[in-house]
Amino acid sequence: MAVEQNQSVESTTDVLIIGAGPAGLMACHALAKLGIRVRIVDKRPEKLIAGQADGIQPRTMEIFQSYGLLERLLKEGNQIHTAAFYNPNAHGTIELTDRVPDVTAPTARYPFEVTLHQGAIEAIFMDSMAASGVEVERHVAPVSISLDEAVARVYDKECYPVKASLRNLFNGNLEVVNAKILIGADGAHSWVRKSLGIAMEGEQTDYVWGVIDIAEPESDFPDIRNKAVVHSNHGTCMVIPREGDKVRVYIQLDDGAVLQSIAANKNKSNGRIDMTKLAVGPEDLLCVAQKILHPYTLRAGGGKFEWWTVYTIGQRVASQFSVHNRIFIVGDACHTHSPKAGQGMNASMGDSHNLVWKISAVLNGWVDPDVLDTYELERRKYAQDLISFDRKFAKLFSGKPRTEQYQDGVSHEEFLQIFQTFGGFTSGIGMRYLGSTITDADHTNSTRGIKVGERFPPRPVVRAADSRPMDIQDLLHSDGRFKVLVFLEGEKEATIALEALSIELEHVTRMSPANNLFAVTEVLTFIAGTGDSPRDVLNWTSWPLMLRSHWSKIFVEKPDGAEYSPEVIVVRPDGYIGKIIPSHSLESQLSNYFSGFLRKKTQKSTCYIGPGLDQS
Amino acid sequence: MAVEQNQSVESTTDVLIIGAGPAGLMACHALAKLGIRVRIVDKRPEKLIAGQADGIQPRTMEIFQSYGLLERLLKEGNQIHTAAFYNPNAHGTIELTDRVPDVTAPTARYPFEVTLHQGAIEAIFMDSMAASGVEVERHVAPVSISLDEAVARVYDKECYPVKASLRNLFNGNLEVVNAKILIGADGAHSWVRKSLGIAMEGEQTDYVWGVIDIAEPESDFPDIRNKAVVHSNHGTCMVIPREGDKVRVYIQLDDGAVLQSIAANKNKSNGRIDMTKLAVGPEDLLCVAQKILHPYTLRAGGGKFEWWTVYTIGQRVASQFSVHNRIFIVGDACHTHSPKAGQGMNASMGDSHNLVWKISAVLNGWVDPDVLDTYELERRKYAQDLISFDRKFAKLFSGKPRTEQYQDGVSHEEFLQIFQTFGGFTSGIGMRYLGSTITDADHTNSTRGIKVGERFPPRPVVRAADSRPMDIQDLLHSDGRFKVLVFLEGEKEATIALEALSIELEHVTRMSPANNLFAVTEVLTFIAGTGDSPRDVLNWTSWPLMLRSHWSKIFVEKPDGAEYSPEVIVVRPDGYIGKIIPSHSLESQLSNYFSGFLRKKTQKSTCYIGPGLDQS
Repeated sequence: MAVEQNQSVESTTDVLIIGAGPAGLMACHALAKLGIRVRIVDKRPEKLIAGQADGIQPRTMEIFQSYGLLERLLKEGNQIHTAAFYNPNAHGTIELTDRVPDVTAPTARYPFEVTLHQGAIEAIFMDSMAASGVEVERHVAPVSISLDEAVARVYDKECYPVKASLRNLFNGNLEVVNAKILIGADGAHSWVRKSLGIAMEGEQTDYVWGVIDIAEPESDFPDIRNKAVVHSNHGTCMVIPREGDKVRVYIQLDDGAVLQSIAANKNKSNGRIDMTKLAVGPEDLLCVAQKILHPYTLRAGGGKFEWWTVYTIGQRVASQFSVHNRIFIVGDACHTHSPKAGQGMNASMGDSHNLVWKISAVLNGWVDPDVLDTYELERRKYAQDLISFDRKFAKLFSGKPRTEQYQDGVSHEEFLQIFQTFGGFTSGIGMRYLGSTITDADHTNSTRGIKVGERFPPRPVVRAADSRPMDIQDLLHSDGRFKVLVFLEGEKEATIALEALSIELEHVTRMSPANNLFAVTEVLTFIAGTGDSPRDVLNWTSWPLMLRSHWSKIFVEKPDGAEYSPEVIVVRPDGYIGKIIPSHSLESQLSNYFSGFLRKKTQKSTCYIGPGLDQS
Repeated sequence: MAVEQNQSVESTTDVLIIGAGPAGLMACHALAKLGIRVRIVDKRPEKLIAGQADGIQPRTMEIFQSYGLLERLLKEGNQIHTAAFYNPNAHGTIELTDRVPDVTAPTARYPFEVTLHQGAIEAIFMDSMAASGVEVERHVAPVSISLDEAVARVYDKECYPVKASLRNLFNGNLEVVNAKILIGADGAHSWVRKSLGIAMEGEQTDYVWGVIDIAEPESDFPDIRNKAVVHSNHGTCMVIPREGDKVRVYIQLDDGAVLQSIAANKNKSNGRIDMTKLAVGPEDLLCVAQKILHPYTLRAGGGKFEWWTVYTIGQRVASQFSVHNRIFIVGDACHTHSPKAGQGMNASMGDSHNLVWKISAVLNGWVDPDVLDTYELERRKYAQDLISFDRKFAKLFSGKPRTEQYQDGVSHEEFLQIFQTFGGFTSGIGMRYLGSTITDADHTNSTRGIKVGERFPPRPVVRAADSRPMDIQDLLHSDGRFKVLVFLEGEKEATIALEALSIELEHVTRMSPANNLFAVTEVLTFIAGTGDSPRDVLNWTSWPLMLRSHWSKIFVEKPDGAEYSPEVIVVRPDGYIGKIIPSHSLESQLSNYFSGFLRKKTQKSTCYIGPGLDQS
């Protein structure tokens, strides 16, 4: 397209996001709600109407809840509570081997998976963003990015080190956007990643899978509304029920002709399959599934397929997730893996959730820019773990089932053991971040069974002023603030801890922007209830004012064990535990934690000059 | 206003509702969702922005849930879980006597009250109605109603026996609306009721109460976020927390000067107080409350009152609730009582909820018009019970507290006993409708502890096809259909019952409109699970097709007692139990129940001529 350079315009924004899939939208939505000036562009002209990823894991639901988005997800989505396993029987057809809970993470607040078409999930973000005045700019693609490294560490109100040229694909116009931060959320074939020269490490597997989405399935398969993993003598498939009556079927392809056609239409350099030239269609994939599912039947009502694709699995992680903490990549742009464990969209949104509050806190001048280092530290480690899990799982998945005739095959017990052992991992619940300035692993276990680096688990409490039962997770809104959870014993025992706490909170206040404790933290107090009913326990008005900035900040918790003692737990803005302090050693520990990353007052509040760099 | 008669236009509608308060809107919303052609008019030019009723009881929440409206109510409303009682102490000030659960109905699904300003509740209905294309026509008042009694019992598509003239108060234009049904929901001073000459039976009490809504209360009263009933030597008041930080205070007035001013400005004929001429303002009311609450303080932040009023309590019930089953009155138009037990809005919406499905079923030609008789039968009885409860409660409320000096006063124990004894009543949960064609009291108790005439209680079950935990109440949508709940034992024992059931369902099918069982009923099946986990229990595909019109219609219930046996329970479209049949005596009982009120096929499907009336 021939466009005159002088048609270009120039503009500024705080954060520019390339790609409006789940990872990009999660980031954009969160930043918009945090009050950051943000734009998001996508080269697709229309929003997604079918297909792509569809599984939401328990931890992702907790994250949605922290943004106030879960209600709609649950209203629109399908729930998977049970996983069923089918294997070959003596007659050479399949039979039910086992049914187990689909989610095996004991602390999961929502112990099930939700399936919902990716476009519907994206719409949840878009509708909520629209209330903040932010919309996806479509049919817009980046043509170049550059970073002014000399000022990459200058965090100044007027310093925009990232320059991105965007082309409007409708009219060909160019726009030069000057941004403080750029996020590449542009998928497995990320243009941003490639233009930065970031390599993907790992390999492409030989496994070829087909996927069909059937809108009106007709079936007598008893587990058509459960997740069903079917190993047969004719191959392997997985049934995933979806919203409404829809069903998705993943089918491993090992038919020679099919594989040949796919190989012939595969781009050697990027692994992409040219679907338009393929000698295989959704009817062929269904036909394979029908053989695997025999003696049960599965038909597509009206012969209609909502969506279908074939793909090979790449198991790769980007060598770096950031360039000078000014350009970041998130989601499929930094990790690709098989869809078997339903991780893709979850890992991607998890990246953004991890990143956004750090960006917001840095741009607001609240924390040291070094905090941004923890994004790669935390998320790249996770992506690597994900890939190595995926290798094991995909291999088992693709292996032939063990039968009397084929003793080398994968037994159901073997498969189930992996499925359940990794339950904490696949659910996202068991993930634990490494130690860093924001995750202080000095004292790692609370007497409440809570661990530094993990997400704060659900925990029932009762609000003191109105006896309303609540879950602590619902107090941990993703609002960009650190939550200081003060767990105290009854009124008498608490007085000593209160004195030390008061001094510590005073220190943190002096470190806080504008000397306002509540700019970056929220203090929530939980009193151990001694009676059966919180109604008898306490008059909330008798607690010191520092603990009750509002009547809604004091709670009663029911002790659930003997060695349950007073402590202070700091939860990061993304819901992960940053610090656990037993109340007997409160002194200087709380303030030391915050001084490890809160921006020093001696620095200008809007400007930070990195070591060895001059600001001109 | 002089308006030429020839400016009037004439129109038709199925149902015309006069009055868009909670009762009218509940009726209008439900009818619109049931597909009935409905209009609603209100003489007020604007929607309500503050004041009026604000308490939602547990049963009303269950009803909201059945219409899909509860989520928003819970999101916007405040929850009251605890009731606190204060009484005079030896120092002559008040002190806490007791804190108890605010709701004492053991089966309540939502064991708390919700408070939310009436305008916000009305908005929930209006927003949902708007999706069905129905809006409130404001500044429109009725000027005359007439009923053509000769054709009152002719249910014909083109027969509109009710004629109402409406005046548009904006431009003075008249419209003559011909309706099949008219609902008067126009409040305690109902124009509809008066124009029909329906008397109110009962009396006006001498109790005078003041109400203030404080948007930003400043208080050290520990129960400012609970319902607090305060009896002091200086009078009685009640604190009701509201959405946000708002608080409402009800104050019983017994100051001579205040009562004198009120008496002087009270309309002798209708009991209305002319607020504009009153020598009392919200500051005076607050001043009384402050004396009662001493030693605790209560101030109105910024001196602002959101709303206030004074009123006397009338305890009256209309002598009839309907004229020829063509004109109905609902809500305050047929019963008035004190607001102490938070019943007003609930009783009103309960009237409409009871009435609407009957209107819909009659207008659709599904059931005999006589079914409409049950509205007055059921709701007038309830209103009478409500008034006699209110007499007891208001008297106790207004009585002086018992102290050492005043031994004739009301003791806390006495008060609490009444408060808790009537918990089932005030919550709406314990209400039980009398026997009638639609409520067959032949066999009144199920082995599940469920009683004919009561609302179907919450009950956890698991959906067989996808192991999703659900509550039976969530299957009982207010969709105008009778729910046939089939409770079966395990597969083997069930076969005999299944045979009888099949014959019965066949009978009901032949009675149903267009021989379609699902036009007026929905069949839901619950299989007693024998194992710990429903995953092991059954393959839902093995049950007969008549029980699974869709995969989502079969459930597993966990038996919770020994004498738990198979039975069929019919739930009316409003959630109340119509019939309980032990499965061993299924024969003809199910079909007899339905034949008691389903419209006979020998009648023309769109026309019903009452006894002794000719259709010309």
